[in-house]
Amino acid sequence: MRLTDPALLHRLTAALFAAEGVPEADSAWIAETLVAADLWGHPSHGVMRAPWYLARLRSGAMRRRTAPEWPVDAGAVALMDAKEGIGQVAAAEAMRSAIRRAKAHGVGVVSVRNSNHHGALGCYTRMAAAAGCIGMLATNASPAMPPWGGRAKLVGNNPWSVAAPAGRHPPFVLDLANTAVARGKIFDARQKGLPIPEGWALDPEGRPTTDPLAALSGVLLPMAGHKGYGIALAMEVLAGVLSGAGLLDEVAGPYQAERRSGCGHFVLALDISRFAAPEDFAARMEGWIARLKAAPLAAGAREILYPGEGEARAEARHRAEGIPLAEATRAALEAEASALGVALPEGW
Amino acid sequence: MRLTDPALLHRLTAALFAAEGVPEADSAWIAETLVAADLWGHPSHGVMRAPWYLARLRSGAMRRRTAPEWPVDAGAVALMDAKEGIGQVAAAEAMRSAIRRAKAHGVGVVSVRNSNHHGALGCYTRMAAAAGCIGMLATNASPAMPPWGGRAKLVGNNPWSVAAPAGRHPPFVLDLANTAVARGKIFDARQKGLPIPEGWALDPEGRPTTDPLAALSGVLLPMAGHKGYGIALAMEVLAGVLSGAGLLDEVAGPYQAERRSGCGHFVLALDISRFAAPEDFAARMEGWIARLKAAPLAAGAREILYPGEGEARAEARHRAEGIPLAEATRAALEAEASALGVALPEGW
Repeated sequence: MRLTDPALLHRLTAALFAAEGVPEADSAWIAETLVAADLWGHPSHGVMRAPWYLARLRSGAMRRRTAPEWPVDAGAVALMDAKEGIGQVAAAEAMRSAIRRAKAHGVGVVSVRNSNHHGALGCYTRMAAAAGCIGMLATNASPAMPPWGGRAKLVGNNPWSVAAPAGRHPPFVLDLANTAVARGKIFDARQKGLPIPEGWALDPEGRPTTDPLAALSGVLLPMAGHKGYGIALAMEVLAGVLSGAGLLDEVAGPYQAERRSGCGHFVLALDISRFAAPEDFAARMEGWIARLKAAPLAAGAREILYPGEGEARAEARHRAEGIPLAEATRAALEAEASALGVALPEGW
Repeated sequence: MRLTDPALLHRLTAALFAAEGVPEADSAWIAETLVAADLWGHPSHGVMRAPWYLARLRSGAMRRRTAPEWPVDAGAVALMDAKEGIGQVAAAEAMRSAIRRAKAHGVGVVSVRNSNHHGALGCYTRMAAAAGCIGMLATNASPAMPPWGGRAKLVGNNPWSVAAPAGRHPPFVLDLANTAVARGKIFDARQKGLPIPEGWALDPEGRPTTDPLAALSGVLLPMAGHKGYGIALAMEVLAGVLSGAGLLDEVAGPYQAERRSGCGHFVLALDISRFAAPEDFAARMEGWIARLKAAPLAAGAREILYPGEGEARAEARHRAEGIPLAEATRAALEAEASALGVALPEGW
């Protein structure tokens, strides 16, 4: 894999969306969120996804211009109808709005419906942390797993994120989906001829399986068994039921170019300064992190990390050295550029 | 196990706390939360705990009169200092306050410090659901597991709960701790001479183990591996760092009679009526639940439930038939009654 300069990757990705008719500022922001995921070492949420989003713009399932309406705009709380606009743009506007509301009222909540897939959640909760807030975001998603006791995909992996500033450290950022593992890990086991642990998947008849082939024709299971099922449902209550978004199989994934997404979000910001002097909060976070990291290590472990720390390190490394972009992703971006008449940036 | 009338169990439990010097109304509320856990089929959080709380009152680690102060009282948000009062009383007052704030501002957040163990979280989030709100509660707790990559107990199981009204159904109530399993399940495997699944615990050297004996002298692991570790930390940021409560091993469990608890809570209520007509929200919840329950069943499964449904059924059954109280619990309550000069209620 060649290493790619993140600035060049951003320039090309933004140019693709702009050429597709997305406003310049929105194109730049979409590119920023995608490149951020690559910088953090999560290429599954990186620029690899740009062609999916471009296909959704072309099909009309997602609108080029994001023009949300606000059916409720009431002080600390609001309801945004994203009107099938771009998920990245809608989620960022919702988080900015929640932060403004938090600065005025101590807490702000924005419920979003008729939105779209918005990439890595940490992009948005980090905005809150950077503004001196604790941020939370939950999204409902297309079916990924059965309800507990079922055997057919119906419940989304419904990802959620909580972020907070951590003093002199990079922010604390929890960002997870509620399935036991991503499907890619099962592909990986199949390639290597290895069994998968029990608890990852059911076969097509709904029996627990350790055979990756049976798992791939069956369904993924929630993390932590029935607990992960319950958490995924709680996130759908917050992101979907409250907002009036699509629910369960009414939500479509980003790789289904023709189908409207239907997803919703729950966005919350808490202004830390209403509860504590920001320097006291920062000192508490630093002391807490220091004590976590000083714990005696388990066999084979080299270090204790807090959530978000690994991503911050990967970002520093990739900014310095470049992003190891998969050849297939590079080729897909070049094909989009060629189709859209976008020149590859100098130095690409 | 004899079946015990829940009304008698409530009367006796409340009388014990009143005899110990807790105000009548607070004694009745403590009894209500403890009996509720028994009714829901969770005796680990039921009246079995009454002697622990009584011991904490006697040691002075927990105060008989709960007189919180409010260092911050600012519209939608507040900070409560529970001043080492009774956890059940402080958490209920915090939730009532959050609900009032939600009715005024759409959302209410109360951050609580210097509180105590408050029993089953569902007691408090159900208050929000009953008031037409989505409720959330998180608490930090005494060390139960190592940080991910560590081998010594440092991070609490930091339980959290989300509840919402569900139309004509009993409320949706997620209520969970972030450890893979409760310690009792490992005791159970030891009694039966069975191995435990990998992922439940480490041995004293910090190696994964399937031996229940090694696990009992080692440490429990978080649910879902590093994800559960991250969730437990996020709940401590919300409940502990924000409020200025104790963190990590500064928090003591309820069975340590002499140590102040130091725990904190994060309490949130969202007024659903600000976002949707309550009848629309109810209809969405009912339709969503109907679709979850209609999914095709996995091998061996008899039914699909939503979180809170099993507890509601157990409550109906136990109200009709009585609570199967363990003989040891019955004897412990009788011993407390004898020591406090409390007469056993008629029909006991």
